[in-house]
Amino acid sequence: MRVYNFAPGPSALPLPVLEKAAAEMTDYHGTGMSVMEMSHRGKTFLEIHARCQALLRELMHIPDNYKILFIQGGASMQFATIPLNLMTTGAATYIDSGNFAHNALVEAQRYGRVDVLASSREDTYNHIPDFDVDRIAEDSSYLYITTNNTIFGTRYTQLPKPKSIPLVADMSSNILSQPYDVNDFGLIYAGVQKNMGPAGMAVLIIREDLIGKAGPNVPKMLNYQTYADNDSLFNTPPAYTIYMTSLVLEWLKEQGGVEGIYVKNLEKAKILYDFLDASEKFTALAAKKDRSLMNVTFVSPDKETDARFVKEAADAGLVSLKGHRIAGGMRASIYNAMPKEGVEKLVDFMAEFEKTI
Amino acid sequence: MRVYNFAPGPSALPLPVLEKAAAEMTDYHGTGMSVMEMSHRGKTFLEIHARCQALLRELMHIPDNYKILFIQGGASMQFATIPLNLMTTGAATYIDSGNFAHNALVEAQRYGRVDVLASSREDTYNHIPDFDVDRIAEDSSYLYITTNNTIFGTRYTQLPKPKSIPLVADMSSNILSQPYDVNDFGLIYAGVQKNMGPAGMAVLIIREDLIGKAGPNVPKMLNYQTYADNDSLFNTPPAYTIYMTSLVLEWLKEQGGVEGIYVKNLEKAKILYDFLDASEKFTALAAKKDRSLMNVTFVSPDKETDARFVKEAADAGLVSLKGHRIAGGMRASIYNAMPKEGVEKLVDFMAEFEKTI
Repeated sequence: MRVYNFAPGPSALPLPVLEKAAAEMTDYHGTGMSVMEMSHRGKTFLEIHARCQALLRELMHIPDNYKILFIQGGASMQFATIPLNLMTTGAATYIDSGNFAHNALVEAQRYGRVDVLASSREDTYNHIPDFDVDRIAEDSSYLYITTNNTIFGTRYTQLPKPKSIPLVADMSSNILSQPYDVNDFGLIYAGVQKNMGPAGMAVLIIREDLIGKAGPNVPKMLNYQTYADNDSLFNTPPAYTIYMTSLVLEWLKEQGGVEGIYVKNLEKAKILYDFLDASEKFTALAAKKDRSLMNVTFVSPDKETDARFVKEAADAGLVSLKGHRIAGGMRASIYNAMPKEGVEKLVDFMAEFEKTI
Repeated sequence: MRVYNFAPGPSALPLPVLEKAAAEMTDYHGTGMSVMEMSHRGKTFLEIHARCQALLRELMHIPDNYKILFIQGGASMQFATIPLNLMTTGAATYIDSGNFAHNALVEAQRYGRVDVLASSREDTYNHIPDFDVDRIAEDSSYLYITTNNTIFGTRYTQLPKPKSIPLVADMSSNILSQPYDVNDFGLIYAGVQKNMGPAGMAVLIIREDLIGKAGPNVPKMLNYQTYADNDSLFNTPPAYTIYMTSLVLEWLKEQGGVEGIYVKNLEKAKILYDFLDASEKFTALAAKKDRSLMNVTFVSPDKETDARFVKEAADAGLVSLKGHRIAGGMRASIYNAMPKEGVEKLVDFMAEFEKTI
């Protein structure tokens, strides 16, 4: 029996996608082999690879002057790769809105001066800090943000618009969950393991003029040019991850694309936040104005009750609700693949549980 | 219907492994979710992760003073990561025995002086070059080799034994195919996509004293210390690839481990080489003394016949026999997962085909 899985990533995948992958595991489309066993230079895999890119381009309305790259190593690898490729002036600007934003700026400090434009670190990142793009230094190469903060459950509802430098965004935990205009960004990237597929790859959407700026000491496999010149096939790619991602994107298209899933995501989040706002026992953690649609953080009156809640919810088939150790309490990650029914069950369970507090 | 897949990597996986993965896809061991959907910090995945390491340690008899690391990016990423972590003297020594060895030494040149101890490049790498470890410079940090050369189908039958520096080996295309004494190496690494699992990860087996030597400019995700300190779980690992690798290792154990599969691999290679040596129409490409057990390269009398062979073999269910463009001709990759029956069918087909040349 399948559970409702509220894990923050790796996280729930659509059941039809998993069923399709299982059915195709030993013989993909009559080839007599699994996608895992195929040459990455062969016609069949190249079709999967191209379809994955085409679907992403279609779903996010990616303009022609942006390239899509598939790079191993997840988002954490990009924390170094971004300054190695884009910090051409020796300086860059970061907004410190969460734990991963912070890790990114610490890693960037190896390679140059990092200006922190704004930070909510002293408030345990419970909101998106106010920022003023006019305060960005003239010699800054780019402005870096994290559009959705997985641990504390916040998101930007208004994007910063730097005047003359590219906006670089870690969109790992809310890519494809709501419409964005790709033209607002120089680089969007995301680890795929939340809204796109199984862990093991980052997807990059990069404006072409930002490619080709890495210095001679940058490893070939960290240079965006290597991926752009070889359509992400310079070496063996994480082929099965690309295949799974293509299946998730096909499923998303069937859901009405990003615009369609956004309506559902708004509904799902509203059900949960409305319950929390009305509850006398549970409290939502993130500032109202910055609430994430993907990660909903909350607490009960005390830590013992938090722990009991997480355990009893799991026994009822609502799993992985424990909050991150930094934020504490609970976190319900309700990515694209979480059906509305799962959120309704969670709220029903919370309503019953509340009576026992 | 399954085919016999002679692809050089990604390559054939054992059918029982694929069937198990398919059966467990939507509900792993009653957890109600796929391994793809699990938290990498949860008990269930941590068990898979530990089992994968324990199986590898058992199968390769890895001593306690070696750590096992799982790193994304494949072997090509290691071409840079190795000098970034191990080239502490500013110099290293490479043996240039094939295309991937060559790529590794070119990448290492970004980071210091690279001495080429021996090369068979001028002979299109059709043999392992003679080497003399007494000619290694005193200030060299390590000696680098590729134990099996996938493209030309050669392997070292005698390992170099440098006196005072570690031997570093890319074992991507013959790890787990024959017994090695891990004590002979400072670092063994392998992209998993040939003998261990689906593409998307490199496995490293590294002597503990070689960890912790990277400089301050090395990206955190390229520093072996990061992986050693966090049991390869600093960030989200390629969890499904680790799971598939654990299934392949379980299967290998059932085959009698490395010692058991080695006997089968010797048998398989002998069937094919014996046929080639007796044939008047087909010719084996690699020098006899250095023949690979994993990749068997050969040619027919001319390129047109090569092309016809590859096509007609594929029609008969013997696929991916085309040689690498650098080597030309044909290549039958007969990794651990290729059953003896597949090699026998190939030889039968070659015997019939030969009559038409």
